[in-house]
This record gives sequence, C-alpha cells and structure tokens, in this order.
Amino acid sequence: MMIDELENGSLGPYQDRPRTFPNMRSKAYTPWVFRVLMGINVRVLFVLLLLAFAAVFYVGASTSPIVVFVLSICIISFLFSIYLTKWVLSKDEGPPEMVQISDAIRDGAEGFFRTQYGTISKMAFLLALVILCIYLFRSTTPQQESSSLGRFTSAYITVAAFLLGALCSGIAGYVGMWVSVRANVRVSSAARRSAREALQIAVRAGGFSAMVVVGMAVIGIAILYATFYVWLEVDSPGAMKVTDLPLLLVGYGFGASFVALFAQLGGGIYTKAADVGADLVGKVEQGIPEDDPRNPAVIADLVGDNVGDCAARGADLFESIAAEIISAMILGGSMAQRCKIEGKVLTNPSGFILFPLVVHSFDLVISSVGVLSIRGTRDSGAKASVEDPMAILQKGYSVTIVLAVLTFGLSTRWLLYTEQAPSAWFNFALCGLVGIITAYAFVLITKYYTDYKHEPVRTLALASSTGHGTNIIAGVSLGLESTALPVLVISVAIISAYWLGQTSGLVDETGNPTGGLFGTAVATMGMLSTAAYVLTMDMFGPIADNAGGIVEMSQQPESVREITDLLDAVGNTTKATTKGFAIGSAALASFLLFSAYMDEVATFAHEPFKQVDIAIPEVFIGGLLGSMLIFLFSAWSCSAVGRTAQEVVNEVRRQFIERPGIMDYKEKPDYGRCVAIVASASLKEMIKPGALAIVSPIAVGFLFRILGHYTGHPLLGAKVVAAMLMFATVSGILMALFLNTAGGAWDNAKKYIETGALGGKGSDCHKAAVTGDTVGDPFKDTAGPSLHVLIKMLATITLVMAPIFL
Amino acid sequence: MMIDELENGSLGPYQDRPRTFPNMRSKAYTPWVFRVLMGINVRVLFVLLLLAFAAVFYVGASTSPIVVFVLSICIISFLFSIYLTKWVLSKDEGPPEMVQISDAIRDGAEGFFRTQYGTISKMAFLLALVILCIYLFRSTTPQQESSSLGRFTSAYITVAAFLLGALCSGIAGYVGMWVSVRANVRVSSAARRSAREALQIAVRAGGFSAMVVVGMAVIGIAILYATFYVWLEVDSPGAMKVTDLPLLLVGYGFGASFVALFAQLGGGIYTKAADVGADLVGKVEQGIPEDDPRNPAVIADLVGDNVGDCAARGADLFESIAAEIISAMILGGSMAQRCKIEGKVLTNPSGFILFPLVVHSFDLVISSVGVLSIRGTRDSGAKASVEDPMAILQKGYSVTIVLAVLTFGLSTRWLLYTEQAPSAWFNFALCGLVGIITAYAFVLITKYYTDYKHEPVRTLALASSTGHGTNIIAGVSLGLESTALPVLVISVAIISAYWLGQTSGLVDETGNPTGGLFGTAVATMGMLSTAAYVLTMDMFGPIADNAGGIVEMSQQPESVREITDLLDAVGNTTKATTKGFAIGSAALASFLLFSAYMDEVATFAHEPFKQVDIAIPEVFIGGLLGSMLIFLFSAWSCSAVGRTAQEVVNEVRRQFIERPGIMDYKEKPDYGRCVAIVASASLKEMIKPGALAIVSPIAVGFLFRILGHYTGHPLLGAKVVAAMLMFATVSGILMALFLNTAGGAWDNAKKYIETGALGGKGSDCHKAAVTGDTVGDPFKDTAGPSLHVLIKMLATITLVMAPIFL
Repeated sequence: MMIDELENGSLGPYQDRPRTFPNMRSKAYTPWVFRVLMGINVRVLFVLLLLAFAAVFYVGASTSPIVVFVLSICIISFLFSIYLTKWVLSKDEGPPEMVQISDAIRDGAEGFFRTQYGTISKMAFLLALVILCIYLFRSTTPQQESSSLGRFTSAYITVAAFLLGALCSGIAGYVGMWVSVRANVRVSSAARRSAREALQIAVRAGGFSAMVVVGMAVIGIAILYATFYVWLEVDSPGAMKVTDLPLLLVGYGFGASFVALFAQLGGGIYTKAADVGADLVGKVEQGIPEDDPRNPAVIADLVGDNVGDCAARGADLFESIAAEIISAMILGGSMAQRCKIEGKVLTNPSGFILFPLVVHSFDLVISSVGVLSIRGTRDSGAKASVEDPMAILQKGYSVTIVLAVLTFGLSTRWLLYTEQAPSAWFNFALCGLVGIITAYAFVLITKYYTDYKHEPVRTLALASSTGHGTNIIAGVSLGLESTALPVLVISVAIISAYWLGQTSGLVDETGNPTGGLFGTAVATMGMLSTAAYVLTMDMFGPIADNAGGIVEMSQQPESVREITDLLDAVGNTTKATTKGFAIGSAALASFLLFSAYMDEVATFAHEPFKQVDIAIPEVFIGGLLGSMLIFLFSAWSCSAVGRTAQEVVNEVRRQFIERPGIMDYKEKPDYGRCVAIVASASLKEMIKPGALAIVSPIAVGFLFRILGHYTGHPLLGAKVVAAMLMFATVSGILMALFLNTAGGAWDNAKKYIETGALGGKGSDCHKAAVTGDTVGDPFKDTAGPSLHVLIKMLATITLVMAPIFL
Repeated sequence: MMIDELENGSLGPYQDRPRTFPNMRSKAYTPWVFRVLMGINVRVLFVLLLLAFAAVFYVGASTSPIVVFVLSICIISFLFSIYLTKWVLSKDEGPPEMVQISDAIRDGAEGFFRTQYGTISKMAFLLALVILCIYLFRSTTPQQESSSLGRFTSAYITVAAFLLGALCSGIAGYVGMWVSVRANVRVSSAARRSAREALQIAVRAGGFSAMVVVGMAVIGIAILYATFYVWLEVDSPGAMKVTDLPLLLVGYGFGASFVALFAQLGGGIYTKAADVGADLVGKVEQGIPEDDPRNPAVIADLVGDNVGDCAARGADLFESIAAEIISAMILGGSMAQRCKIEGKVLTNPSGFILFPLVVHSFDLVISSVGVLSIRGTRDSGAKASVEDPMAILQKGYSVTIVLAVLTFGLSTRWLLYTEQAPSAWFNFALCGLVGIITAYAFVLITKYYTDYKHEPVRTLALASSTGHGTNIIAGVSLGLESTALPVLVISVAIISAYWLGQTSGLVDETGNPTGGLFGTAVATMGMLSTAAYVLTMDMFGPIADNAGGIVEMSQQPESVREITDLLDAVGNTTKATTKGFAIGSAALASFLLFSAYMDEVATFAHEPFKQVDIAIPEVFIGGLLGSMLIFLFSAWSCSAVGRTAQEVVNEVRRQFIERPGIMDYKEKPDYGRCVAIVASASLKEMIKPGALAIVSPIAVGFLFRILGHYTGHPLLGAKVVAAMLMFATVSGILMALFLNTAGGAWDNAKKYIETGALGGKGSDCHKAAVTGDTVGDPFKDTAGPSLHVLIKMLATITLVMAPIFL
C-alpha cells in the first residue's frame, strides 16, 4: 500500500512541490483496532484498563504470590517507561529543517512498518491455522486426556499462545521504532547544546523501549501462566501438574520467534540495502560524506536504521528473553517433578518454575537504576566538556551488574531454597554468577575484536592499505578467527554451570544428582539478568546514528556534528557487544530448548528418548541438513541485501546522471524513489529465507518420519530433527559470530581510517575500507542477527511441531 | 637454506648479472639417498629393483591371488606412466627465451619443495616418535596379546605404516611437480604449432602423475597388507584374524594425511600469496595483464602453480585415495567378521577386504584408456581448427565412466559374490553406480555454480558492475548457497547406498541385515572409481596455466596466447570440478572412518560403543569445538595468505617506485626477491594451522578423558572426540564447498568480464571482479583444499591416537 503511495505520489521532480521531503503520510492508515479504541471515551478506557488489571491481579493472586510480585513489578516498569517517554518527548525538536527531515524519516519508517507487519500478520494467521489443524489431528497421551487436556484444549492453547506471542513481539518492535523516530530529532537538537544532554535523551529513549520489551515478555508469560493455571485447575486432584504447565507456553515463544525472524529479515534487508547502496555510490564513487543531503539514498538509509535496528532488535531481544524464560521454566518444572516424586526434596515446585520471571523482574528494577544513573544535569549548557560517552555508559553498566549479582543471589535464596538440599540455592547463585561473568566475557571479546583500540581491527585497517582484496581476506579471517574465544567461553560456562547444578544436592527418585541442566538454565538467566540495560545501550546506537544523520542533513555546524559522531561511534560498539550478548544467550537457550524437545518427544512416544545417535546414517544426514540450512539461510539473506543494494546503486547513479545539479546543491535528489525501492524489495526478499527456516525442519521431520515408518525405525523423524536442530545450533552460533564480528570489525576499521590513520578519508586505503564496510553491513545487520532468531525459532518450531514427526 | 641462497645470491640489481632470471640452482642440493643411489652402477640397481619386485610378488602370492593381481596392474601402470613421461619429454622445449623462463620456474619450485619437505619430514619424524611412545605405554586388549600383537609389535607397525604413508605422500607430491615443471614449457612450445598437440602434452603429463599417485597409494597398501599378513601369520590358529588386519593400516592413512596437510597448506599459501600480490598491484593498480613480464611477482606466481596446485594436489589426492581404501577395507573386514561368526554367509573374507584395491587397479586401467583416447595426431600442424578442449576432455571422461561402470560390475561379481547371499553382489554393484552418479552430479553442480555459461556466475559478474562491495556480497552468497545441492546429493547417496547394502541379504549372527555401512563404502569406491582420470584433468589445469604464463612472458604472438588462454580456462573448470569430487569423496570417507573409530574404541574399551549422544553437555561441547576448529583453521589459512600477499604487494610497489623503468621494459624487475618472500613466509605460516589441526583433537580428547575420570564418566574422552570429529566433518564439508565454489565463481566471473562482457578488461566492473578473484584465491586454493585433507586427517588421527582418549 505504502509502495503505491510512494510510486504514485512522490516521484515527480521536486522543484514543483511545496514539501522538501516525500510526503508518505497522505493517506493516513490507522488499523481498525486503534480507530475503535480512539472512538471510546478516555475515561471509559481508563476504567476498562483498571478492570483488566484487576482481573489479571485476581488470576495471579489465585496462582501464586510470586506471580503477583512479577505482575506488580512489570506494571511499575511500564509506569516508569511512560515517565521516560514523557521526559524524552518534553525535549524540543530543534529548528524546522531538523523537524522536516525527522518527519520524512518517521513517515518512511512507519509506512514500512505498517506494510511489513501487515504481511507478517497475514503469515502468522496462516501458520496459526496450520498449527490448529496439526493439533486437532494429533494423538494425545493418556496422561493428557486424564488431565482434561484433550486434543481441542491443547490445540486452542497452543494457537492462542502463538498468536499472543506474535502480537507482543510485534508491539515490542513497534515500540522500539516509535520512540526512536521521535527521539532522534530531539537528540540532534540537544547536541547543539550539550553532549551529555544528547546522550541522556538517547539513553532514556532506549531505556523506554528496553523496559517495554522486557516487561512485555515477562508480563505476557506471567499472564498466560496464571490463566492456564486457573483455567485448567492445575494441581487439583486428577488435573494437570504444575510442573507440566510451562510446556504449554512454548507457543508463545514460537510466536515471538516467528515475528522476530521476519521483522529482523525485512528490517535488516531494508536498512542494509539502503546503507550499502548509499555508501557505494556516495562515498566510493562520488566521494561525498555519509548522510550527505545530496545522496538520494540518504533518507532510505536513515529510515532503515529505525526499521532495521530499532524495530527488529526490539522484536529480537523480546524473543530472546521469551524463549529463554520459557525454556528455563520447562527445565525447572521437569526437574522439580523428578525431585518430588520420591525424593521429596522440593516442597513447592513453583519457585523453580517461576524463578526466571522473578530474575527478569529484578532485571527491570536494576536496569532502571542503571538508566537513571546516567544524568545530564551536571554539565548541561557547557558544550565544551565532552566526556567519553562510552565511559558513562560503562559506569551505568557496572552499577547494573553489581546490582544484578546482589538481586540474583537474593532470588536464588528466595525461590530455590529447599530444606532437603539447603546449599542448593548457593550453587545456583554461583551458576548465575557464571552466567554474568560469561556475559561480561562476551562483551570483552566482542570489544577486543571490533574496537579499533585493539590489535585485530588495526591489522584489518593495515590490510586495507594494500587494496580491496587484502582487506576482504583479512576481514573474513578475522571474523572466522573470532569464533574461537566465545566458543571456549561458552564451553567452560556450560560445563561449570552443569557441574555446579549436578553437585547442588538435588537428587531424583533413585538418588542420582539431577540439577545439572537446571544449573545451565540458571546460568542463562544470569547472563540475561541485565538484559534491559544491555538493550538500552543497543537502542541507543541507532538513535544516535539517526541524530547524526539529521545533523548532517540539516547542515549544522561542525561542533554539533562532532558530538553526534562521537555518540554514533559509541553506538557502534554497544551494538556489536549486544550481538555478542544475544548470540551467547541464544547458544545457551537453544541447548535448553533442545533438552525440552527431548522431554516432549519422550512424553509423546511413551518411551525414553534420551539419545541422539549421530552414528546412524539418517541422523548424520539430519545434522548435515541442519548445518546446510544455516549456510543457505545466510546466503539468501546476504544476497537479498546485495540484490536490493544493486537496485539502489543503479537508481542513485541514474539520479546523479539525470540531475547533474544535485552535486552542487542546485537540484534536490528524489529521496522517495530510493525509499520505495528498498521498501518493496525488502518485503519481497524476506519471504524466501523466512520460509526456508520454517518449512525445512517440518519437511525434514515429516519425510524421515515416513522413511522411518517404511524401514521400521520408530521415532526416526524425531531423531533426525533433533540432530538437525543441534547441528544447526552449532553452525548457527559460529556463523553468527563470524558474520557479526567481521561486520563490526570492517565498520570500525573504516572508522579508524576516518580518524586520519593510514591516509585518512578519501585515500585509496579508505576506499578499500569502505568496501569492507559495505560487505560487512549485510553480515552484521541482516544475516547475523537473523541467525540469532533462527536458531531459537528452530528450537521452538520443533517443539510446537513435534506431533508431525511422531 | 634456499631462502639464504635467494637472499644472498640474487638480490642485486639485474643489470649487472648475466642471467635473466634468478639462479636458484647455484648450490645444487641432492639428498643423500639420491647421492648414494646415483653412486651405484645402473645394472646393479636394476638387479636390485628386480629382486625387490620378486620379493614383493612372493609375499603377495603367499597372501592371496588378488594381491598378485593388484601388484601386477600397479607395475604395469608404472611402466605405462614411464612411457607417458618419455613421450612428454621427447617433445621440444621451444626457443631459448621459453627455456630460460621455464628454468627459473623449475628452480624456484624445486628449491621450495626441498625446503618445505625438509621441514615436513622433520615434523613427521617427531610425530612418529610421539606415536611410538604412546603405543609403547598403551594398554592392549587380551585378544591382541593372544594374537601375538603385543604392545611392541603394534607400536612398530603403526609407526612404520605412518612413515611409509608419509614417504609415499611426499613422493606423490614430488612426482606431480616434477612432471609439471617439465611439461609446462613443452606445452607452450607446442601451442605455437597446434592446440590439440598442446592439449595432448598437458593431458599426458597430468596422466603420468595421476598414474603414479593412484598406483602408489594402491601398491603401498597392498605391500603393507601382504607384509603384515605374512609376518603376523594371519589366519593361522591362535593368530590374528584377517578381518582385523586392515585396522593396522590406519597409520599409513594418517602419514599420508599428515604430509598432505602441510603440503597443501604450504603450497597453497605460496601460490595464492604470490597470485594475489601479483594481481593486486599488476592488474588493479598498474593495469598490466596477468603474467606480464614487467610484474616482479610473476615468477613467484608461476612457481606457485607448481608447488601449490601440482605438488599439493598430488599429495591431496594420494591421501584421499589411501584414506578411502583403508576405511573401506576396515569396514569390509568388520562386516565379513560379523557375517562369518555364525551366519556363515561369507566363505572367503579377503574378497570383501581387498575389494577397494581391485577397484583402484581397474581405475588405473580404464583411466589409461581414457588418457590415451585423447589423441593429437589428427589436426597436428593445422593451427586454425581449434576445437573446444573441454569437449575433448569430456569425451575422455565419458569413455572412462562407461568403462568404470563395466569394470565395477565385474569386480563386485568377482569379489563380493557369496553363495548364501547370491544377489548381494548386484546390490553392491548398484551402490557403486550410486557412487558414480554422485560423482557425476557433483561435477555437474560444481560446473553450474562456477562456469560462466550458467546463471550464478553471470549474476555475480553483474554484481561487479555496481562495485567491489556488491561483488563480494554476491560471491559470498553464491558460495554459501552452493552448499545446498551437494549436501542433498550426499544425503540421498548415503541413504540409498546404505539401504541397498542393508537389503543385500548379508546378515549377522542374529539374522539382522548388516551390509548397510559397507554399501556406503562401496558407493565411495564407485565415486572414486575414475579417480585417476579426474586427477589427470586436475593436473592438466596448472600445467596449462604455467604454459600460458611462459607464453605471455616470452612475448609470443597473440594466436599462441589464445590457445593457452583457452586451455587455461578449461583447466580452471576441471580444477573446480576435481574439488567438488574431492570433497564429496571426503564426506563419504569421513563417515566410514568415523564408523571405524567407533569400532576401534569398542574393541579397546571392552564394551559396546555404538552411540554418540549429543544431548550430554560435554559431548555437545565437543561438537561445538569441532565446528570451531574448522572456522579457526580456515581463518588462519586465509589470513596467512592475506599477510603474505601484503608483503608481496609492498615489495612489488617498492620495485615499481624504485625502478621506474620497469613499466617501459627498460629495467628488469627483481623476480627473486618476491620468490624469496613468499617461500619463507609460506613455510612459516603453514605451521600454525597445521599444528592446530593435529594438536586440538588430541588435547580435547585427553582433557575430557581426565574430566571424565574425575566426574565418573567412563569413555567421556572418546565420546567427546567422536562428536568433535562428526561436527568438524559436517562443518568442514560445508565450509570447503563454500570456499571452493565462491573462489571458482569469482575467478570465472572475472574471466567472463575479460571476454568483453559488462565493459571488459580495464573497466571499473573488471576491477571489482579482480577484487573478487583475489579474495577467492585463498578460499579456493588454500583454505578449501586444506579442509578436504583436514577432515580426513581428523578421522585418521583420532583412530591412531585413540589410546590417549581411553
């Protein structure tokens, strides 16, 4: 729809038009939900809202006091995030030329968002229908039948959870973008006054979406959990056990992953196609700086930052947190069950199940403290004293980490203490510490490989001085090499957390230690226990980037640009570290979801399913196909960017030739045309890799189930899918690390040269570095982050679709 | 040593020197073995040789008539290969300027070969000592003790096999290079007369080394097998069973892999560092054509073709064939054992064990026919009628394939026929057919992705028109995408061959079908049943490439250059297809060796070891580390090329600045300096990735063995290594496919543009394509082919080092 508007409405020459930037608002499209809501009186709405909250609290209270605690904290965080928005929106938008640019960015971003999420929601409904059919025709276990969880109930529950997950993921993405398109101009305006104030606005805007994203993941799961608990009369005689409840939440995780995958793919293709296209003609061929108003692709590039980095990353992190909370709940439940049956170690299993929700509630609190610790009042008005923004952010992070260690210890003592294993909580607290240290190690490693203060990026920059070819070879090698340390860290983390869990004193009915896997889950929790602050730092990046673009385009004085450039550089580093953080937690979460999958299959197959034996040819092939899926997915997402970027390059070149006055500021470039090209191309291009990710595990599982049926191998489909999942996870982790780090390093090698090293801007060395940067763009912002989502989605899709393979 | 000569002897300005090219022969270094041999009278030598043959035949005859058959065919092939050399050497070397260039290439190549193999042999002796110590302190099975295969015997046998394998691998490499440095000038001389004659010389020279490489792999294993058979009194009462004999040959495979790995790494780094360095300055910066005599790095580049492509590929293919014969023999033995114990299906197990040797004997025969079918007489003297050389080679390949199908059927009927399962041989013949079809499919897929007649390379070429960045993105995507089809083909091949084997009628003592794995082994045999012809086509490439270089450097007329360019382009395609072929067979062979490893562990541990369960955290970590090993190895081998290429670029730039007359042919460039730089750098750089590949599986196995000891997990080390092996194999296959195909496609996209498409030579589009080509060089000729060797070496190293993990 937006595409039509763009193509029909804004492609004429600019001279004839009153507005400077393409008007993409002409036909304001408001979804009917909003129209209905806006029709209702505000007071009625407020009363309805209060009633809804009361209902939620009532249901929560009849489940467990822990749920009430979690709900309360989430609501307080939402109120806090509203305060943050009000604070950000109260800042001035600067001079009209800035507002004009910001409006163009906002319109482009919101237009694309609407169209993209329209497509995604259609696909989500289609998939929901498929899931419904599968569950209506599945076979159920006698256990389930007895606990009134029949075919129909489980079908509706799964579909409802899926749709809720998809909706929340969508909202998370929207919120991320909503605030960034409003904060960007306020940051650039504040940069005219003070670096510190600009930093503060960007951080608080990022903090707002981080609070909403994390809070929504937590509250969604808490509400689902409480509702199912009350609805299914859990723990009443003959009904379902509370320890089985978390498995019903998997649909939520799948819904979240599904939307996040397409959001990341679509947004990633959009932002990087525009970026690469703009850079290749603007920087390399014409020699004009980044975000120069003469570049016809510059608005598309700035729009891309919002839809790709803000909206997609919001959905991505939402999905990470949801997947990881659910997997930890499942493991907590199954461990509690094992310990209770005969050993009678655990008196109240809810503590083990609800532990992840509490950890993230504390996460919201401590991250708020971290965000508030970054204050702008001190040097407001004094433009000269530019501190290192990284140091300020780092200080906030340190505050958050210290608090995280404390609250994590508190949570373990509160929820994981049992009389029979009195020291177990301490072991689990140590697991949490392992997770926090792992997160920190990931941040350090990512920094080492992507920051130009260190050896690797300097070597890469030096390789640019001998040409484009050696730059690419050095970057690829750097990226491939950078997989080693994170893998070693993850290995040590998994083994030590497993060992701490195993020796915690929790034993199953036969007296075997059984806490190992839960220990790994707690470590994952620990790793993500500062997620909201990390997400804040991540969101900060694209907002600062956009602010820089607006400053550049509105041709502000050099000093203002220096401030936004500084913020932008810091944003690059925080973006890279978030990715390290995301992939580390994805690695741990997938390992947990894999165990959940094994449990699920065992339940359905009425036989133990403990092993995935890769010495069986079919299983080996499953692994081969899993790894291949990662390669193919990366190929398709990179080539989507490449193809779209080529269209942009051709369009930009055409405009420079047809309107020779652009270079002397005599003619206005046609920004709208580039926006239209990337928007329509990225919507088209996101389908193929996305469909591959969803269809292939289902197809492989189904095919091998049939093959197993005819060759007399029971459970062959499930085994092959398990191997596929495991190999895809391993390859996915490595590939994502490679793509993210290589991309980040190329970007910063270019930035290093732009500081004046090795010939500085405009030299041949710089040109080679720009080539590396453009290659790195789809690596680090399209394929890499999509892989994070993909490996978790593979885990949740196999869990949800397990009935097909059995 | 050579380095010193180069640095001291040939770095003065050229004007003062009588020779045009650096004299690297000054201190002719001859190993003492040769000096002793040359000191003996020729007749005495001949008599000694005859006596040796007689002894070999005597030992063979007391083993099995099949061994005699294999030995006879090998000796006939050696005689045939001597005929081919004589034929090639009888051709004229052309005018003195050609001879001069060829001499310089020969001296550089032989000098590097000596130094390189000196280093490798030192490392091999060190490793042999380590193996000896490990085997002297290992624990032995009671079964082994009873069969007189004590600790000492098995230690000496393993070390002897290792050293013999290493020696033969070294000879295979040397032979490949020996003939190519002699044939290149003869091909360029013949190109002045007739395209067909040039083609014939190149093919016959390639055929010579193919015969020697394949023949030596076969005869080495046959001699070892016969010697062990006689020495250990196999099959006599109380002694070892013949079905256990193949396990003793593993050391041979490991020795071959060890040398091949370093040969490939050193040679690959040499050739591509020189190539990239020459291209980046010559083609991109100065705009002079490839192999132009004004480029100071051109001799190093031409030397590199010989040490990298000829010597290394010879060792590589030797190792492929050896590893795959041994693994098939092990599987044949273990299957024969299972079938015999109670089922009494097999009356004579030797047929199953010796089957691979017979297949490769026929391979020698039919490939000789294929090579001879390419004749040069018809149009000799008529320069005009240039046929498509690819069609001629393809015709020869078709002849060979048809013969392969026939002889393969014959071999299965002869050796795999048993009365109790009368149709088994037919099933295995079909397995062979599956292998042959798989090989053909691999060749087709590689061609589709790397030949510019097809869509992918054209798309890649088009992406070059929008700049360096989009070219690289498109190439990376193409490479990643190209992994999909081969994986599907391999999957289908493994499953169908396994199924054919399972349904062959062979059953074990309990009546379970047991031929599945052997079916896969037979398919691998089928795939490699035309190995000698494929190797011929592969060797043809670098010889043609070198001939082109000599023609260009000696400034022959355009028409001569056209002929060698044509041959060179064909050589590129055949090189790419051999790589597809090599990786396909490596995938299958690793799967076989993995099964052998499981058997070996089970024997030592006195308990069944049938499963590798990736749901155990430590095992999962083993897998993660295995995949990481592949990434790190690729990183280090690519960055080695990048670093060395940067040195070359700086040196070439320095020479162009310091000797401005070079560009006008007024001054001679200092070729020797570039040769010295790449030679010393590649020797240094090959150590790190090579050591990584050898040390890491041993270290991981040993560490986890200790961890397992303390946490009460028996066999943990062995399980973790198994997972590591499996994940490394899968990642290695995919990574190698990616690197090989991307590299080949970039190369041909450049060639496509050089045909005049999209602006042709010298355009911006061509420059972008050259960047892609230089990036692809280390991918396809250093890292990619090293990975083929690596995944097989991992399998043999774990087999040989198994005692450490247990």
